[in-house]
Amino acid sequence: MLKRTVFFISDGTAITAETLGHSLLTQFAGLSINQIRVPFVDNKVKVRKVIKAAEQAALSDQHPPVIFNTIVDQELSGMLAEANGHIIDLFGMFMGPLEQALGVKRSPLVGMAHGMHDIASYEHRMEATNYALTHDDGMSIRFADAELILVGVSRSGKTPTCLYMALHFGVRAANYPLTDDDLDDGRLPACLRKHKKKLYGLTITPERLAEIRETRRPESRYASARQCRYEVATAEALLRGEGVSIISTTHASIEEIASRILNDLGLQKQLF
Amino acid sequence: MLKRTVFFISDGTAITAETLGHSLLTQFAGLSINQIRVPFVDNKVKVRKVIKAAEQAALSDQHPPVIFNTIVDQELSGMLAEANGHIIDLFGMFMGPLEQALGVKRSPLVGMAHGMHDIASYEHRMEATNYALTHDDGMSIRFADAELILVGVSRSGKTPTCLYMALHFGVRAANYPLTDDDLDDGRLPACLRKHKKKLYGLTITPERLAEIRETRRPESRYASARQCRYEVATAEALLRGEGVSIISTTHASIEEIASRILNDLGLQKQLF
Repeated sequence: MLKRTVFFISDGTAITAETLGHSLLTQFAGLSINQIRVPFVDNKVKVRKVIKAAEQAALSDQHPPVIFNTIVDQELSGMLAEANGHIIDLFGMFMGPLEQALGVKRSPLVGMAHGMHDIASYEHRMEATNYALTHDDGMSIRFADAELILVGVSRSGKTPTCLYMALHFGVRAANYPLTDDDLDDGRLPACLRKHKKKLYGLTITPERLAEIRETRRPESRYASARQCRYEVATAEALLRGEGVSIISTTHASIEEIASRILNDLGLQKQLF
Repeated sequence: MLKRTVFFISDGTAITAETLGHSLLTQFAGLSINQIRVPFVDNKVKVRKVIKAAEQAALSDQHPPVIFNTIVDQELSGMLAEANGHIIDLFGMFMGPLEQALGVKRSPLVGMAHGMHDIASYEHRMEATNYALTHDDGMSIRFADAELILVGVSRSGKTPTCLYMALHFGVRAANYPLTDDDLDDGRLPACLRKHKKKLYGLTITPERLAEIRETRRPESRYASARQCRYEVATAEALLRGEGVSIISTTHASIEEIASRILNDLGLQKQLF
């Protein structure tokens, strides 16, 4: 396989550069890509280090590296342009078109992308994360303040999905694990019935569930193929019978699941 | 203030478009920007809805909206180009330069950016998230498997930072709250002493800490200015005395804190 090195360079966290870079690079199959994030490149010494690392990558790959640059400071950004690599200057490429589209000039500021420029929204995320933690796994079943409640069998992916939605979208996401009693009952437990509009079901294939549970409690009844098949089939029937939407987590990432659920429930939330 | 509407349109989660868009828009102060994310735009009916929404935004803002487009499908992307708005086509702008830089042609695939194209890395994140949850707030003090351990007084920001690092970077991040006993002792508790290289301290101004604690336990000793001042000063002295790096969470976002700590501890982790 061809080897390539891709740098994500920023005077902030480099998270924007890396997020975009990852997306773009998924479109290139068949390359062995070494991705290197270098945050907080905010002085000349650090820029020189990056230039040196780029030189080494060019030698070892026998191909110049790609350098995604989101350095706001124009002098440092200019220095980096001397590196032996293909520079893709994110701000440079977009600022012109964006100024034109918005009809105003920009006012350059460093480290704003993932900084604390909006303290209210930041506190909102923290509050939502605390909510998700205290309303995880049936710990609290008082759901009046929940914006949504994920329902599913144990290990279907409820906890990470709730945490992701809280941290990124500031959503107060609770979750409730369907217990054996609930499954035997064949209907939603009382604590969920009055919040039907906030419910969303997570499901998973019994095979995948058994794999996940096996790593937690090896050779247990809990992880057995039979038990997993029973729980998944019964939970899906229960949720369908109650008219609750279901999404499978087997082949979906947290980002996809979160985005889909918020969209389906009509929760227009901004990514923080 | 001038009103503008910005759409983030994708046939996937739209997270890439929104992340980049947010970063770019922080450079424009003095605008009132309504940001609308529309994920999963994967058929003509949905594209037509977006075109209609753009038309309405143009009317109400008296200025055409900006439309960040990451639709991979070329027919749908072409339809969207008819909208009354300034289209910024992320893939279109980058693919040419990137193909040239990498020296290979791309192989277009939808929804890969935040999808499950790398199941091993996904499982790694889930495993790390479980680790963070079970090693939160001193719940477990067996830190042999931890890649890093955050230390600080109660409510200094340890939990959300650990969860963020686990979900995004797949880092097994534990945390330990410094108790009154630890502070009185004036040195690291035994469980941390042998893991010194993994430690990183979080601190916060006493004023901010008191505010945060006040919302949890109003008018308590725990939330009093005096107690917060004592705990912060003592914890900082203890950590400094032990040679543990400290970062203040008062004016930093989770993304900044996480990025900084991983960088300082030399944990070269990829953003998932």
